[in-house]
Amino acid sequence: MIIHKSQKSIANRFFSVVTFTNHLCYNLLRQAYWSPESKEKKMSSPLIVDIHTHVYPPAYMELLRSRKVVPYVHDPVSATPRLVILSSDDDPSIPLDERGRPVDSSYWNINVKLAFMRRHGINCSVISLANPWLDFLEPDEAQTWAERINDDLEQTCARVNQAADPDKTHSLHEKETLFAFGALPLSAPRADIVVNEIKRLKTLPHLRGVIMGTSGLGKGLDDPALDPVWGALQETETLLFLHPHYGLPDEAFGGPEVINRYGHVLPLALGFPLETTIAVARMLLSGVFDRFPRLKILLAHSGGTLPFLAGRIESCIHHERKFVANGGNVSGPQRSVWDVLQTNIYLDAVVYGTAGLKAAVTAAGGADRLMFGTDHPFFPPLDTNEDAEWPSVTTNYKAIHAAFDTEKEAVGAILGGNAGRILNLE
Amino acid sequence: MIIHKSQKSIANRFFSVVTFTNHLCYNLLRQAYWSPESKEKKMSSPLIVDIHTHVYPPAYMELLRSRKVVPYVHDPVSATPRLVILSSDDDPSIPLDERGRPVDSSYWNINVKLAFMRRHGINCSVISLANPWLDFLEPDEAQTWAERINDDLEQTCARVNQAADPDKTHSLHEKETLFAFGALPLSAPRADIVVNEIKRLKTLPHLRGVIMGTSGLGKGLDDPALDPVWGALQETETLLFLHPHYGLPDEAFGGPEVINRYGHVLPLALGFPLETTIAVARMLLSGVFDRFPRLKILLAHSGGTLPFLAGRIESCIHHERKFVANGGNVSGPQRSVWDVLQTNIYLDAVVYGTAGLKAAVTAAGGADRLMFGTDHPFFPPLDTNEDAEWPSVTTNYKAIHAAFDTEKEAVGAILGGNAGRILNLE
Repeated sequence: MIIHKSQKSIANRFFSVVTFTNHLCYNLLRQAYWSPESKEKKMSSPLIVDIHTHVYPPAYMELLRSRKVVPYVHDPVSATPRLVILSSDDDPSIPLDERGRPVDSSYWNINVKLAFMRRHGINCSVISLANPWLDFLEPDEAQTWAERINDDLEQTCARVNQAADPDKTHSLHEKETLFAFGALPLSAPRADIVVNEIKRLKTLPHLRGVIMGTSGLGKGLDDPALDPVWGALQETETLLFLHPHYGLPDEAFGGPEVINRYGHVLPLALGFPLETTIAVARMLLSGVFDRFPRLKILLAHSGGTLPFLAGRIESCIHHERKFVANGGNVSGPQRSVWDVLQTNIYLDAVVYGTAGLKAAVTAAGGADRLMFGTDHPFFPPLDTNEDAEWPSVTTNYKAIHAAFDTEKEAVGAILGGNAGRILNLE
Repeated sequence: MIIHKSQKSIANRFFSVVTFTNHLCYNLLRQAYWSPESKEKKMSSPLIVDIHTHVYPPAYMELLRSRKVVPYVHDPVSATPRLVILSSDDDPSIPLDERGRPVDSSYWNINVKLAFMRRHGINCSVISLANPWLDFLEPDEAQTWAERINDDLEQTCARVNQAADPDKTHSLHEKETLFAFGALPLSAPRADIVVNEIKRLKTLPHLRGVIMGTSGLGKGLDDPALDPVWGALQETETLLFLHPHYGLPDEAFGGPEVINRYGHVLPLALGFPLETTIAVARMLLSGVFDRFPRLKILLAHSGGTLPFLAGRIESCIHHERKFVANGGNVSGPQRSVWDVLQTNIYLDAVVYGTAGLKAAVTAAGGADRLMFGTDHPFFPPLDTNEDAEWPSVTTNYKAIHAAFDTEKEAVGAILGGNAGRILNLE
């Protein structure tokens, strides 16, 4: 392969960041990695928990394979299955075998996940369905599929954990374990079906919360019809992992031609984070956190942009005449965004830099509300060396170490201690 | 006026933040405020420069009054002029006297600006046109109006500065001064007209840069046709103040009904910052910073969300197959977003909280690229006490003090020292 000078330059640019050391911190981290070969090392290993890691479990792949309309999975002969997830992916001018995106074994083979965990020193993962979750299901099939998929997640976790520690003699940081966030039948015909599934998930030993996109029942998270769902999440003390899926309209970036020019960069780098921020802001503005003050929500990608924009959101609320505090005619939120951030919100540490991490910790009021994550199996290295570490993971490891170079307790808390406590892992 | 309990709660919630003390820091700041009454105090006062403060100078008001299509200014009989700035504001079902928004004297009377400065301890302001700038002008009138408006800004600054220091014996922090960012005739028929105005501005003694929105020549800031403009800005070492105006499509927030429900909160709090972030990301992706490595750009609102999202942008670039480093078929940026942030970008400190400020300082590589601003005359208190301090200003003062409670040099640098050096104020 011939590498042009410009290619080299870009590659060097990135890898100089990726391999940027803080060698000391990184080596300390590596030494502390969980290792199956060394009992001595096991005892001194920190707990490293990945709370942002996706799977398409067998039942979900079966569901997607049974469909012929978006979203669906198509199996080319002797090739990787392809997921057609967006209407724009389902382009009849493209051969069916080439439509959509490949979903290789890292998406659905749990052994590939476990190998990824070992390679990156992770000894516990809290797996969750990836988008599009169950948003697309017909009302009459939502409940059945949610139950099947959540049971499938439970069985996967149980099987892996049993194999890792048959006699149940090891502590959490000494073994390789899985827990899961369940999926909700949000398109079910009645909210009580969603509520029932939230309650049922509490009876599954390895379920530690639910994952959800930002559309809610189809109208966004400020929809009053969601109140029974918020009520059930609060009552059962179930953590909600809120994750973006729909991004922003192409027009936000300058239209389809601009999107086409830069590929996935703008929608993924900017559209996803703002989708999350908008969703939480709408919850705040509509008083969800006033009505359900004990909700617990984990925000993907360190809150999108919420930690950075919290002050601006609060200032704009205070200056909006519509809200009653200012003599307006519409009720505004009672609780401040800062209070919500420090009471109801948890953040993953998937932010790829110390700048974002410092904002996240400051907005959260401390390091005790942040939890390490990888976003696996998304953002793999584009080269084909399967044994290589993933820069999308090591960048976050290094940012955590760089941000807290004098506070080892904070590093341990973010890497695993917080997740153990908050998700009641054992 | 009867205040309901809920109103009180909201008011208390905000003011508990606004009046939150760090009393010590705030009082130290107040003691150091520039004061015309005390020569002794003057000598020890820090320089406080507001680099984000808007005016509609007389020539601009004349231009807007001469128009009958959006944007235009209408003068109701015996009432505040109204600016109809958006097509949606120009609703024929609304009486002309009530369309758009009032533009009171704080927008166009420089004495009101000076009074605001005194009230908030600011002794130097770098004034700039507010949106919609000159984006809307017919090609054949763009040059003439740009020259008239920029000459108007120059004359206003000269008059005020002459009055404040007729003998030119005071140093900058001892007097009340104005400088300005000029406007560009971006709709002119040829780029050389824009280039000529950039060069002409260097001959006006009080002009310290230019302000611009994100649409460029109409197609965004990654438009190759802008290269002569970037070239002229770089060659003349002219600072560009990049400011949002267009926000995001209503659909990004859930459609017009959602926008109507929450008033201006979502477009201002979230749409504006993302517009800025998208604009800079498009510049980066299209190689503007590779072709013009000495551009100097000041980003409004602490970069929108750029400091927080920089790592995610960089990660998404590295994982995008389109770019040549990864074997793709499209050229990607050579320089990293971190390098650009620490070389080409300056940030105002208009972010309303320590969380955002910490991200801004970390992304900028230090406190020496941040500059205090107020966004005056936007975000006034909604009560009618004209002598009150503005929470939208004091919140930022306090955030700067809270973020650097052990680093007084950083506080002084952000409040004025950086602006003095970067904008060559004297």
